[in-house]
Amino acid sequence: MSAPRILKPGDTIGILGGGQLARMIALAAAPLGLKAHIYAPEAGSPAFDVASAHTQAAYDDLDALSAFATSVDVVTYEFENVPVDTATFLSAIVPVHPGARALGITQDRLDEKTFVSRLGIETAPFAEVNDDAGLEAALAEIGRPAVLKTRRFGYDGKGQVIIREGDDAAAAFKAIGRHPAILEGFVPFEREVSVVAARSEDGRFKAYEVTENEHRHHILYRSTVPADVTPAVEAVSAEIARRIGEALGYVGVFAVEMFLVVEDGAQGVIVNEIAPRVHNSGHWTLDGAVTSQFEQHVRAIAGWPLGAVERLGRVEMTNLIGNEADSWHEILAEPGAHLHLYGKAEARPGRKMGHVTRIFEP
Amino acid sequence: MSAPRILKPGDTIGILGGGQLARMIALAAAPLGLKAHIYAPEAGSPAFDVASAHTQAAYDDLDALSAFATSVDVVTYEFENVPVDTATFLSAIVPVHPGARALGITQDRLDEKTFVSRLGIETAPFAEVNDDAGLEAALAEIGRPAVLKTRRFGYDGKGQVIIREGDDAAAAFKAIGRHPAILEGFVPFEREVSVVAARSEDGRFKAYEVTENEHRHHILYRSTVPADVTPAVEAVSAEIARRIGEALGYVGVFAVEMFLVVEDGAQGVIVNEIAPRVHNSGHWTLDGAVTSQFEQHVRAIAGWPLGAVERLGRVEMTNLIGNEADSWHEILAEPGAHLHLYGKAEARPGRKMGHVTRIFEP
Repeated sequence: MSAPRILKPGDTIGILGGGQLARMIALAAAPLGLKAHIYAPEAGSPAFDVASAHTQAAYDDLDALSAFATSVDVVTYEFENVPVDTATFLSAIVPVHPGARALGITQDRLDEKTFVSRLGIETAPFAEVNDDAGLEAALAEIGRPAVLKTRRFGYDGKGQVIIREGDDAAAAFKAIGRHPAILEGFVPFEREVSVVAARSEDGRFKAYEVTENEHRHHILYRSTVPADVTPAVEAVSAEIARRIGEALGYVGVFAVEMFLVVEDGAQGVIVNEIAPRVHNSGHWTLDGAVTSQFEQHVRAIAGWPLGAVERLGRVEMTNLIGNEADSWHEILAEPGAHLHLYGKAEARPGRKMGHVTRIFEP
Repeated sequence: MSAPRILKPGDTIGILGGGQLARMIALAAAPLGLKAHIYAPEAGSPAFDVASAHTQAAYDDLDALSAFATSVDVVTYEFENVPVDTATFLSAIVPVHPGARALGITQDRLDEKTFVSRLGIETAPFAEVNDDAGLEAALAEIGRPAVLKTRRFGYDGKGQVIIREGDDAAAAFKAIGRHPAILEGFVPFEREVSVVAARSEDGRFKAYEVTENEHRHHILYRSTVPADVTPAVEAVSAEIARRIGEALGYVGVFAVEMFLVVEDGAQGVIVNEIAPRVHNSGHWTLDGAVTSQFEQHVRAIAGWPLGAVERLGRVEMTNLIGNEADSWHEILAEPGAHLHLYGKAEARPGRKMGHVTRIFEP
């Protein structure tokens, strides 16, 4: 691990991954006088178009990684499935933020839930599942309905199956490939919310307001801010993020996805997942907050002061999935709508092609 | 001249010039799903770092220009001293916005003033100067003090000299290289203001609010919006811009620099100069308006609807000249200040290195 490094204008941020998140980080780095070097295996990655350099290579190509690491001043990533070995290899040469520890814990649903609940933060009830017998035991403990998820490499609803009363548990386990798994109790939540926050190496911390998220087909469809939550939920959400960031020794922007539950008329939150990166539910900050989550992430990993997180109005962010991006011309004609397209060549179903932000008077 | 073309996401904007204006146009094009190809003679041009492609070649390199023109869907430029021949050559292959006519007129101070005054818009009194005798005649007509300016290639106070009572006129002419010149009457102005506006090919027009500009050493130091002007000045300024845009058949963003004069207690404006491009006095729109001048320019040259020009607060934009950019860390620590650095390697005196925008409650 290298010593902490404070970047200066003219320095270069290395980003693992070349999708829209890397692209928006690079676009935020430029006005701060920083260059971006994108590292991604896929040809024509959207982030290549806005970066001063790119390396197209695999995440286990040690020669390419080594050259990349020596050409940049800090490394970050746009997705949590960067191999921990890659992060560890790079961090011997150049600071990597967030660090390998945050990456390791959040890549594994069981480790993540264990980590969160050991902090005394509420999660859904959960149990480890490694085989059919273990699944039966877990179901006996947690009850039905429950959600069986692979421990690793799940996103946007992939790698998970609901086990309801009467369902064949063994078939469910087979459906997720009999991979090491976690069984989670079903949370009767009202709504899904998230908090996007930033922490810098010296422990400074800032959280954006809680965002309310509507999913369709397991993909984020719309975020709205402010969320319809109590001041207590706002406060506790920020505090949850602060404690998680602190316990991870986190540097950069991250998101905590939560379920909003109502018990005896009082709102509370249950942590579902930590995303160690800028997050789709924080895209509203691009036009709707003083500092965007992308600029905030750059500030944090550069060792710079965090920016103001105040909201500029009532904000609504809608994803443009697949051919929804065909409506770009109508969006451009809508006064005050902010269009963000990701530069992806092909609009496959379910693919995030862009988003649109609308700001209303507070 | 090619037929009008409406761009679609995935298309590429070609930009002549690789400085901060090109850089900010490219940064604004990306979220709209457009790629940028920068054409500039200088190695390491700041805009190269945020573009999907760049060509480093001279403006009279026809092979390079030809390859550039066929690789892009529209061409624009960041500075008014692009050779008209270059624009004309390119426009045989691809649409060039703004067109060669706007470029030709605004490159020549005499043509520009003649054009403006023929529209019935007030300018300083002016006369053509080609030799010493012509200068004497012009001085007799216009009086002293007066400003002698080269007709072409002047900017930031370069290529001009004031002739006061008792000054040697011939020496002044020699000081500007005895180039074809224009003598302009001295306007006893109160303040300098500008209007930044956009026009699209089908005649749609939008103007930002009048900006008040403070210069130091002939370089813009600070812009503030709203300007301290009457509603009548706001209205007449927008109307002046509309008529100039119309008469030029202009496509894109342009600025009209004006002197604010007060006669018999009433404010009025006198046009000083037209800048056929995004303009330093419009940088406040990046954080201070719904649509930035850079996005607006992209929308206009793409044939897309113009964006909303509403202001988001009381805005102050301050240039960072030379080593003033060394204060970047203090600016980052200032809540709500928006830092924009241009990625220039060397901070020479008088060089625009960046700017900072501050938004205050209206």
